[in-house]
Amino acid sequence: MQFSSQRKLEHRLKPVLELLRRQDLVQQLVDRSQDSSDIATDLVHRRHHQELSAALAKLHPADIAHLVEMLPPEERNTVWFCVSESIGGSVLAEVSDSVAAGLIDDTPAERLFAMGECLSAEDLGIIEDLLPEDIRERLVSGLREGDRSWLETTVIYPEDTVGHLMTRDVLVIDSGATIKDVLRYFRRLGEFPDHTDKIFVVDQRHRLEGILPLKALFLHSPKQPVTEVMGTDIVAFTPDEDADAAGLAFERYDLVSAPVIDSRDRLLGRLTVDVVMDFLREQAEEDAFLREGLKGDEDLFGPVFESARNRWLWLFLNLLTALVASRVIGIFEGSIEKLVALATLMPIVASIGGNTGNQTVALVIRGLALNQIHRGNVRYLAFKELGVALLNGLIWGSVMGVVAFMLYGNQSLGVVMAGATLLNLLVAAAAGIAVPLLMERLGRDPALGSSVLLTFVTDSMGFLIFLGMATLLLLP
Amino acid sequence: MQFSSQRKLEHRLKPVLELLRRQDLVQQLVDRSQDSSDIATDLVHRRHHQELSAALAKLHPADIAHLVEMLPPEERNTVWFCVSESIGGSVLAEVSDSVAAGLIDDTPAERLFAMGECLSAEDLGIIEDLLPEDIRERLVSGLREGDRSWLETTVIYPEDTVGHLMTRDVLVIDSGATIKDVLRYFRRLGEFPDHTDKIFVVDQRHRLEGILPLKALFLHSPKQPVTEVMGTDIVAFTPDEDADAAGLAFERYDLVSAPVIDSRDRLLGRLTVDVVMDFLREQAEEDAFLREGLKGDEDLFGPVFESARNRWLWLFLNLLTALVASRVIGIFEGSIEKLVALATLMPIVASIGGNTGNQTVALVIRGLALNQIHRGNVRYLAFKELGVALLNGLIWGSVMGVVAFMLYGNQSLGVVMAGATLLNLLVAAAAGIAVPLLMERLGRDPALGSSVLLTFVTDSMGFLIFLGMATLLLLP
Repeated sequence: MQFSSQRKLEHRLKPVLELLRRQDLVQQLVDRSQDSSDIATDLVHRRHHQELSAALAKLHPADIAHLVEMLPPEERNTVWFCVSESIGGSVLAEVSDSVAAGLIDDTPAERLFAMGECLSAEDLGIIEDLLPEDIRERLVSGLREGDRSWLETTVIYPEDTVGHLMTRDVLVIDSGATIKDVLRYFRRLGEFPDHTDKIFVVDQRHRLEGILPLKALFLHSPKQPVTEVMGTDIVAFTPDEDADAAGLAFERYDLVSAPVIDSRDRLLGRLTVDVVMDFLREQAEEDAFLREGLKGDEDLFGPVFESARNRWLWLFLNLLTALVASRVIGIFEGSIEKLVALATLMPIVASIGGNTGNQTVALVIRGLALNQIHRGNVRYLAFKELGVALLNGLIWGSVMGVVAFMLYGNQSLGVVMAGATLLNLLVAAAAGIAVPLLMERLGRDPALGSSVLLTFVTDSMGFLIFLGMATLLLLP
Repeated sequence: MQFSSQRKLEHRLKPVLELLRRQDLVQQLVDRSQDSSDIATDLVHRRHHQELSAALAKLHPADIAHLVEMLPPEERNTVWFCVSESIGGSVLAEVSDSVAAGLIDDTPAERLFAMGECLSAEDLGIIEDLLPEDIRERLVSGLREGDRSWLETTVIYPEDTVGHLMTRDVLVIDSGATIKDVLRYFRRLGEFPDHTDKIFVVDQRHRLEGILPLKALFLHSPKQPVTEVMGTDIVAFTPDEDADAAGLAFERYDLVSAPVIDSRDRLLGRLTVDVVMDFLREQAEEDAFLREGLKGDEDLFGPVFESARNRWLWLFLNLLTALVASRVIGIFEGSIEKLVALATLMPIVASIGGNTGNQTVALVIRGLALNQIHRGNVRYLAFKELGVALLNGLIWGSVMGVVAFMLYGNQSLGVVMAGATLLNLLVAAAAGIAVPLLMERLGRDPALGSSVLLTFVTDSMGFLIFLGMATLLLLP
């Protein structure tokens, strides 16, 4: 009798982590004792690897994947070396793409091939594009005909569509059957696909006619034809639909599984809640990363050089935008020389714009993700956010105006500060709505680099407004 | 025969949206024709409300909730007015808390009470804390004894624990039963709770002994005792566990439902994937909001004043931090007067620190959410992020040094620029790790205001490092 839960994951991983720590200590001892013979070292290592392999063999592939993701490179490689070939493929399918790519790089071709051979066509589909070309081809050609054509079909669909996520493990029954036939079919089958909460009723051309929830089989007489008890109000998807939209439908209608059909209602496969959940989680993480200009699946413990390179594009863009904002200040160097307080106060105007604008961005990105924003209400949304900016700009702009006056004893400077704060909050609200909507219109993820772009607008405009107003109003 | 999907949600909502638009036009006509009698206007309105009610009656409560969330206040109220009392409560349970609070404010007490009466104890538990005290009490005292005690039990658990999310709709069977007994029990039952993929086997003291997947009932002989075919390696939760952790377990082990037990293994209830999914979605959204210092569930189309007020705390904090950063510059006003280029270049140093630091923050927050960060690897993570900062600081710092030199023809200024960029990137990496970890240590959500705090550190330190270095190295 065993109850396990997330919290106990740590307990399950403990033996492995302890072995790793011991190995580390032994390694240090070996390093220190200069005269250690190679054979003795080798023996110690081999012993450790055996223990580690035994400890890993007791873990679920998902647990090993978690372990691998949280280990620094060296220990990660040790663990990976000790994972058996029979479950190595499943571990690869569970970790994030960037981690999987690193592991695959470090795996000898034959071991990788052996791991791939133990995978189902569907799990293979997950890591397929990360594998070296020759191994991929050998694995695909080794599949049975049906598996191969399935893999080739689903791989065609882009990553964020229903077609890419669907499975073909589907229980199907002919519309002429009775409940008794279904029960007999089940017994012959011997095993069920995971997440089977319903079976699909199809006609002779494999067109979906209805769904039969498993519970219906318990509640009705065996003699009844399935067409009499099946449901016909079905939430179905087509393979080219956005996986995002499917995710919302799963949440909205509390689905466990749903059929995927083509334009002629023919049943192609099935979408299940576990896959949808994983997809939604990845999407949410990716969004948080994209907003800051990070690659969607950057490896937390990846090598330094790769992580550094991952960030170059956005670092470069950021430098470029900061340089432009800086040139805006450059225009007003004459004014700053005359009144150095301007240099001190200008970052406040920029900073408050950036923070406020990013709040609006966060709201709009969520609204877009939940399909709450459409043509009919964008105008209202813009008015509302501008209204909020106006109200807060009046209140907090005045506060900042008073502060500036108190610091420098210059009334006009206070007025400029108040006015510039108000105006930059309005700019921030407008940009906060425009940036993600523009990205969406361009067919990109609305979160992509929104934070960097928004800050660019609010910085440049903040400097321009504040220094421009000051030059016009304060300086002769 | 009807296939519906997310994409077709728009089609389902269309009739309602069209009615709303027509109503809007009529309203404008009425407003324009000065002499319109009150009676005629009234008739037109009543007619529209009837049509709207009829259109709404055809929609699923989740669809109405979606509609309500995406409508501006006025139209939202019109729709809410036309929602029937029988499903109004379900709509309230589906919308976000801030939207629900607004709707509840606008609903007459009697109507609200009638809506509440149509809810199950569990749905009532969702909106319970938003209701006015007197209505809440009347509704709770109107519940049956069992429902009331359940509601009172689950409400005790904090919002983000398993106990708050669990349901008690559980199918339970005695461990002495055979499969035949189970089948007979099902037939007597007539209906199944949603998301029943397994039933729970308990002993006479209601202690969990095992789980029986529904499919086992099809695959085994009716004579077999359930104890022979049940599974005993169970992922179970206790009510005080973090819902976050339970969510990760649902993802990891692809669960549809899981038992909730007390410390003596007694079965208390059940956690289902639909509830877990909703929770995870809300968490992800909340995190994105918290990072920018927004309330977790701000209403996209809420009233201006409320939205403005929601943001005051963080706007104030932001002004305060910006003021501190500005005072840092104030220290160096003398230096800026001597070399005004400093004022132009300093925002670049601050900005690049802010953007880089926010990338690290995003990584750490995800690592914490996925339990990938623990004591053993924080040091490695810090070294890695500092390594990335060092590498990128050397490369991009040099680039900025050259740019500064080219702009102002001052070699030493270039050196200061390069050095300050490098140092502020190191500060950003350190702060990017420290800020969320500190929040976590303080028992707060690591995302809470992390963006605002991080920017504060990188701004102040950026100004200090750059202006300080310049004062020491450039000015006599």
